[in-house]
Amino acid sequence: MAGETVITVVGNLTADPELRFTPSGAAVANFTVASTPRTFDRQTGEWKDGEALFLRCNIWRQAAENVAETLTRGARVIVQGRLRQRSFETKEGEKRTVVELEVDEIGPSLRYATAKVNKVSRGSGSGGGGGFGGGGAPADDPWGSAPPAGGGGGGFSDEPPF
Amino acid sequence: MAGETVITVVGNLTADPELRFTPSGAAVANFTVASTPRTFDRQTGEWKDGEALFLRCNIWRQAAENVAETLTRGARVIVQGRLRQRSFETKEGEKRTVVELEVDEIGPSLRYATAKVNKVSRGSGSGGGGGFGGGGAPADDPWGSAPPAGGGGGGFSDEPPF
Amino acid sequence: MAGETVITVVGNLTADPELRFTPSGAAVANFTVASTPRTFDRQTGEWKDGEALFLRCNIWRQAAENVAETLTRGARVIVQGRLRQRSFETKEGEKRTVVELEVDEIGPSLRYATAKVNKVSRGSGSGGGGGFGGGGAPADDPWGSAPPAGGGGGGFSDEPPF
Amino acid sequence: MAGETVITVVGNLTADPELRFTPSGAAVANFTVASTPRTFDRQTGEWKDGEALFLRCNIWRQAAENVAETLTRGARVIVQGRLRQRSFETKEGEKRTVVELEVDEIGPSLRYATAKVNKVSRGSGSGGGGGFGGGGAPADDPWGSAPPAGGGGGGFSDEPPF
Repeated sequence: MAGETVITVVGNLTADPELRFTPSGAAVANFTVASTPRTFDRQTGEWKDGEALFLRCNIWRQAAENVAETLTRGARVIVQGRLRQRSFETKEGEKRTVVELEVDEIGPSLRYATAKVNKVSRGSGSGGGGGFGGGGAPADDPWGSAPPAGGGGGGFSDEPPF
Repeated sequence: MAGETVITVVGNLTADPELRFTPSGAAVANFTVASTPRTFDRQTGEWKDGEALFLRCNIWRQAAENVAETLTRGARVIVQGRLRQRSFETKEGEKRTVVELEVDEIGPSLRYATAKVNKVSRGSGSGGGGGFGGGGAPADDPWGSAPPAGGGGGGFSDEPPF
Repeated sequence: MAGETVITVVGNLTADPELRFTPSGAAVANFTVASTPRTFDRQTGEWKDGEALFLRCNIWRQAAENVAETLTRGARVIVQGRLRQRSFETKEGEKRTVVELEVDEIGPSLRYATAKVNKVSRGSGSGGGGGFGGGGAPADDPWGSAPPAGGGGGGFSDEPPF
Repeated sequence: MAGETVITVVGNLTADPELRFTPSGAAVANFTVASTPRTFDRQTGEWKDGEALFLRCNIWRQAAENVAETLTRGARVIVQGRLRQRSFETKEGEKRTVVELEVDEIGPSLRYATAKVNKVSRGSGSGGGGGFGGGGAPADDPWGSAPPAGGGGGGFSDEPPF
């Protein structure tokens, strides 16, 4: 994929990640990151919170399982991914658009925390290696030995997850 | 600071971080991140490594101590910071310029690893809170003595707006 | 403002920019950028368009007037700004959220075009310099009434250090 | 190419771009962008210049010719590209490393200027379309011989979805 809009967000998880599996066994984790900017008030000489940006995030495969195992509500993270727009219809037939982040890389921030890191041996993931016939899988994933990102078996028949 | 060049790099530490303290007691950690792009060779149908980018990184205060405690050689990280250029003279009197990253946020990547995250209580760091006379420490860091933006440990009383 | 989510988008204007003025005389221009990624299809050996990202953009003051004078529907641009979320209520009383880009810097892309650039003398803008009571105008813009960073027209007396 | 470090820089050209052609006829333009951050001095209540970042830039093919025709010394630009490191040996046999930007997109900033944009018809460039044997030319550029993503001049038949 070329010409995508890549962004990096720093913020806190609004809830524990939700881990699910596609019918073909691919793991996907969903979570929302709240990023709150701060403004310096020259009159009071103090910083105060601005309005938060809430960004819904999707992450796939082994990384999804790692996220679900590592992160919990409130965790401060640094996330990089591609900004995506998705259109859907509400039950009432209204057209809506949501902006989401297709996560490529995420880590718990070390600003206010330490971490004990454990490497995951390849192929150990419960959903790894399964049969991916998947529609959306980016064909140019350089980490080719892993199951496709963004893919799964096209099994997402459900409404957007909120 | 405004108008700085902010970048995000994903790569691996080339060595363990080096932790030092300024005379006034401020912690600073230095490390180098190697980021290796991959090219898809259409003829062979395979991905191969491109030439790595090596970026020297500086991080300050409590975060520096957290980095030193958490990360080791080879660790895959996601780092965000401001690109800086520094000029100096060699012993031979030659002028040189190096490009460095003044790190704002870093975390161990969860792509191939899980982590057990431990929040650091404020003021517990050996250099924390002390007198920062330290050269490079960003004076305008809004998080300097303030609580984390966006909450931290479970402080989210409101749901995201969707 | 610190801790904002800064992004850069490359795409095309979906329509001519709309220029308006706040009651106090501050100019603001609105426009939408459509950014279309491309996927390489290994089977056909061709690139094809992915789903476009449509991002609503706001720009203020003199730059707003420059945008309105320079850009038209279809123009390819490169835009940098801060991602913002705004909540509002529909006439039916439903709560909605939109994501917008508060633009800091924009230029017509030179990928498929040349341009004849004309510097705008300060204070010549119809809304320029006036009383900015304007709601959304970033209050902490360091370039608000100051000369351009890094020089402008030929002020470089020193060579770059290499 | 995947996993590259993409950055966006805003700054001013330190000199006119230099346009050259590879033996096979591919155009390449070189220039340096100086990006100067600004610090707010709380004591004086004023902004002052920080140390500039000088970044050497390369751009290829038709875009290189467009840059050479459009930009001059002092021009303020917004540039996006991939950060690259290049090692070489000096005449004295010393090993040196430089960091450069392989430019993907560039435009003259509209912050302090307007521009009259002229689309370049395909194949009109003196080096365009020719045999690219050129060393640094990105081989995987999806726009290489294809029409611009997202349309171009007025090709938008559909409204954005909001």
